[in-house]
Amino acid sequence: MSEFNVAVVGATGVVGREMVKILEEREFPLNNLTLLASERSAGEIINYRENKLEVQELTKDSFNTIDIALFSAGSTVSKKYAPIAVKSGAIVIDNSSAFRMDKSVPLIVPEVNPSDLTRHNGIIANPNCSTIQMVIALKPILDIAGINRIIVSTYQSVSGTGKDAVTELTEQSLKVLNNKKPKSKVYPHQIAFNVLPQIDEFEGNGFTKEEMKLIHETKKIFNNKQIRITATTARVPVFYGHSESVYLVTDKKITIKKLKGIYIKTKGIRLVDDIANNKYPLAIMSETYDEVMVGRLRKDLTEPNGINMWIVANNLRKGAALNAVQIAELLI
Amino acid sequence: MSEFNVAVVGATGVVGREMVKILEEREFPLNNLTLLASERSAGEIINYRENKLEVQELTKDSFNTIDIALFSAGSTVSKKYAPIAVKSGAIVIDNSSAFRMDKSVPLIVPEVNPSDLTRHNGIIANPNCSTIQMVIALKPILDIAGINRIIVSTYQSVSGTGKDAVTELTEQSLKVLNNKKPKSKVYPHQIAFNVLPQIDEFEGNGFTKEEMKLIHETKKIFNNKQIRITATTARVPVFYGHSESVYLVTDKKITIKKLKGIYIKTKGIRLVDDIANNKYPLAIMSETYDEVMVGRLRKDLTEPNGINMWIVANNLRKGAALNAVQIAELLI
Repeated sequence: MSEFNVAVVGATGVVGREMVKILEEREFPLNNLTLLASERSAGEIINYRENKLEVQELTKDSFNTIDIALFSAGSTVSKKYAPIAVKSGAIVIDNSSAFRMDKSVPLIVPEVNPSDLTRHNGIIANPNCSTIQMVIALKPILDIAGINRIIVSTYQSVSGTGKDAVTELTEQSLKVLNNKKPKSKVYPHQIAFNVLPQIDEFEGNGFTKEEMKLIHETKKIFNNKQIRITATTARVPVFYGHSESVYLVTDKKITIKKLKGIYIKTKGIRLVDDIANNKYPLAIMSETYDEVMVGRLRKDLTEPNGINMWIVANNLRKGAALNAVQIAELLI
Repeated sequence: MSEFNVAVVGATGVVGREMVKILEEREFPLNNLTLLASERSAGEIINYRENKLEVQELTKDSFNTIDIALFSAGSTVSKKYAPIAVKSGAIVIDNSSAFRMDKSVPLIVPEVNPSDLTRHNGIIANPNCSTIQMVIALKPILDIAGINRIIVSTYQSVSGTGKDAVTELTEQSLKVLNNKKPKSKVYPHQIAFNVLPQIDEFEGNGFTKEEMKLIHETKKIFNNKQIRITATTARVPVFYGHSESVYLVTDKKITIKKLKGIYIKTKGIRLVDDIANNKYPLAIMSETYDEVMVGRLRKDLTEPNGINMWIVANNLRKGAALNAVQIAELLI
């Protein structure tokens, strides 16, 4: 079998649409592409190469001929339909948080832990967007110097929430610029020209689910329970691209010069670090580059093994759709 | 002498205008208010109570009858005219970075180190906006538990840069929303719907001047050279209000409950921390409240004395103009 029947579940969402684009861009060996979505979105037309594909309604029978199903329709849909897809003989690559912390489900970033892919039971989880870019940037450091401590603050774009959030930022921005009062539907507060120190719901320990995902998923992907991580995740009025201010303490010393040399050679990473010319990773650059961008690399002045850095990536592509397709490529 | 001749230098800037407003709001005991600015802005009219005051051109003779001069026209102007003002008999409260790290110049946040005000030689420095809100929020913790470590990432608004930056964010936002290419003049890159991990110029150590200000000024205000601080400062597309994600490690244990109890009683701080109802400090709230807002208080899960928090304040008022007027009030 050298060509595959692939389904995209949640094909009309922001990540689903990127999945279709990326399958095309990367010339994924497709026999057939099935686009699935809720009843509400069924019937929509999405282009794939020269074909106009009609989105089908997701049902229990959707997966009968499917080899690989890329899910990006939220946890509830994944919990219900991923086991059905597996029973139908498909391998599921799931972009939701439904199975990520399940011990029998590998959580994969192809650049970081491809070997974890060997032991799956039909479901493979795609990590959260904010996790993917951080682990890709930190993996070379982990390998060469070990990591003892990570303290991360994020600046996340609204497209991570979905289409409605992109619309909300647009509409609210226009309102504010016209001196009118903006309305909030997607977020609990105005996002335009504001910063929300909340992503997802709060847990009992005072952290948000997004913060806990970043903590737990990083440990699982790194196969390392010892790394001490703390996180603050915030939503900023940016359409595309998540930025992260990361502070870490390594076990062994590593110079910035050496680290830059490693980053230049690392596939999947783009070093953007030329402060003499005001060059560093920017959220808007993530619309151009698929790599995880790393910059503002500098030694902490107060901790011998402390390093500060700035990490940016496209949350829809590398942070979601591209990573999922890369997992599919690893599989075949 | 119970009424004072006060001058505002840089009266037409965003901070200068706030200074005039705050002198009025707080009914500062004025005999006379002189508004000074560059030749370009001289002649502009600014309201003070029922009076329309004409802005005068700043010259060497501007300070002959002045008791207190509030400077907010940048370092170059302060370096040139503050010594002239002092020679003319005025006390200078300077909002620029020109004298902040000068050992003979006290760097004052009235809620934090008012006693440092006693030993000045005519010039008193107002700290940087990002420093003021952080030291106010951390002072109660320093007093009760000691602070060993601070790791801060900022989300700073464009008004901290000045009027032109507010205009740039407005114009760029409209361009982007209309699918046109925005132009950057004030910032090296597009600020609309983007995050810039650069505030002020870079130093040789890889940190920006803004980051080094936050580090050095905090130590000076706390009279504590031992605190290990590292900082990443970023500009976000927000008009007013700086947000800060602060992680700290205390010397002694302190519970979040106890800390909240202290904050509720601390003047100058507004505790906004009710996550069950999605309440936490927001940049847009700083247009309503003058206090430094603190929230998202939680224990780090990986470090016994680690605390995460979110700090927001109005960068033009408490972060600049209000703090300067409060210093003037302390003086008299």
